Amino acid sequence: MKFEVTILGSSSATPIYNRNPTAQALNINDHWYLIDCGEGTQQQMLRFDIKAAKINCIFISHLHGDHYLGLVGLLSSLHLNGRKKPMKLFGPAPLIEIIELQLKYSETTLHYPLEFKATNPDAPELIFENQDITVETIPLDHRIPCTGFFFKEKRRSRKLIKEKVEQLNIPVPYFPSIKKGADYTTPDGTVHKNTELTTDPDDPKCYAYCSDTVYNPQYFEQIKGATMLYHEATFLHDMLDRARETFHTTAQQAAEIAVTTGAKHLLIGHFSARYKSLTELLEEAQSVFPNTDLAVEGKTYVV
Amino acid sequence: MKFEVTILGSSSATPIYNRNPTAQALNINDHWYLIDCGEGTQQQMLRFDIKAAKINCIFISHLHGDHYLGLVGLLSSLHLNGRKKPMKLFGPAPLIEIIELQLKYSETTLHYPLEFKATNPDAPELIFENQDITVETIPLDHRIPCTGFFFKEKRRSRKLIKEKVEQLNIPVPYFPSIKKGADYTTPDGTVHKNTELTTDPDDPKCYAYCSDTVYNPQYFEQIKGATMLYHEATFLHDMLDRARETFHTTAQQAAEIAVTTGAKHLLIGHFSARYKSLTELLEEAQSVFPNTDLAVEGKTYVV
Repeated sequence: MKFEVTILGSSSATPIYNRNPTAQALNINDHWYLIDCGEGTQQQMLRFDIKAAKINCIFISHLHGDHYLGLVGLLSSLHLNGRKKPMKLFGPAPLIEIIELQLKYSETTLHYPLEFKATNPDAPELIFENQDITVETIPLDHRIPCTGFFFKEKRRSRKLIKEKVEQLNIPVPYFPSIKKGADYTTPDGTVHKNTELTTDPDDPKCYAYCSDTVYNPQYFEQIKGATMLYHEATFLHDMLDRARETFHTTAQQAAEIAVTTGAKHLLIGHFSARYKSLTELLEEAQSVFPNTDLAVEGKTYVV
Repeated sequence: MKFEVTILGSSSATPIYNRNPTAQALNINDHWYLIDCGEGTQQQMLRFDIKAAKINCIFISHLHGDHYLGLVGLLSSLHLNGRKKPMKLFGPAPLIEIIELQLKYSETTLHYPLEFKATNPDAPELIFENQDITVETIPLDHRIPCTGFFFKEKRRSRKLIKEKVEQLNIPVPYFPSIKKGADYTTPDGTVHKNTELTTDPDDPKCYAYCSDTVYNPQYFEQIKGATMLYHEATFLHDMLDRARETFHTTAQQAAEIAVTTGAKHLLIGHFSARYKSLTELLEEAQSVFPNTDLAVEGKTYVV
């Protein structure tokens, strides 16, 4: 099952050096999800050929402008381009008030249903589920109410043992039930136990998205064992005081969190405008957690 | 005196083909003014090296998203970058409600005064004046309340006749009063009439900005004789019905307006997403009014 994330924006607070405010597009089994939507996200999607029309769920972490100011533009463009199918939107409660005020004064009635669900910044909550994944909020510790999002694959199917399937000449229509754990009975009545035919599935993959937060162990338990952890790393560790003051994380801390929570892969982003080059941020994180990558705009990472 | 406009966005409704929603930066005598502020305007300013910090006045024509969704991001970035000096903002009355709601939920108190003045969409009004220019609103005819803006230089000084100044050896400190029309008395008491010393000034330049409007002669009188007329030209004339329905103008109509109102130079913009190439729009307008240019992003036009 495809599970990958494309970075649309990697800058904190203000856009600079060709870096744009935060946004990420997730492709899970050819279903598309948008996480945060900073100003210019729709332009970034055009640039990187991510089809906005394919997105059916948008998750907004908090109401600092660099995480949502592209949203009304995106929703309007979808409307103008003829969208009819519903859009699910998750974010802080006042988000819908902001959107409705702007639609009111532009005298726009969206041609598609916008299904809003407010997130709760105080406790983790299952907010979305389909055949592929569940999404839970991650209460973070920022200057204003803020949640991350934990995307988790549902348990995968058991894996067919190819040689066994060929040897018994099992017809294709039997595959789905066998993958779910059923035994197989041959035409002559011989029963083959599922354990003969399949091996255990891979562990479900999960993507933990921690947008803006100060270092705070309160959410570590929840992001434990992420296949990929995206964590903000606004500053180098020599700016730790500034990070604390502004409720942000340093690259070193992000890497320490990856170690502590047993992440397999760390992606850092939300870089301060003070860093023209990002090399030092990457090196600082890698010195603690080697399997770290920078969130580079336009680049797609397999979870 | 410098009087030029740089195009930051030339697209209507939705961004596409590397065209961005409407915004223009005016430089008049090294004072900077921003007209409209579509999503991504601050990124466009970075791209084209227009210093946002230099802008002291912003004029918003109306509350369709493609004309103002970049505003809160720009105001926030100025705040984060330490701006202290006031920003004057002109636009439809509800604009300030939208801004204040967004600042409230991001818990932001701007570090600089935002001086808002609501525009009146029903009657032209002088809304701004300094030593160089006056700015009047142009009530337009769009789906929602909308005004254009008429930037007019103040009467210029009379022009000194260089040979005469040299011949009489007039000291520099006398120049300003002579430029204003004063006579000059030599040390021996001889009076030289101003008309001997100066010629009439050039006509004041003016820039008429007509953002979104259906063809409607009601505003033609007000934009008469513009040195440069910027007029929207969303569609080709074969889409006239669609233009009327959506309260927009065709390229042919924009050119007819330039002829009727005696403009010297026409700049067309606000191009529909249906036109990948803009050549036909330009040719259609030029067939009626030859001195027409396309508003090209990043390009600066001398008024």
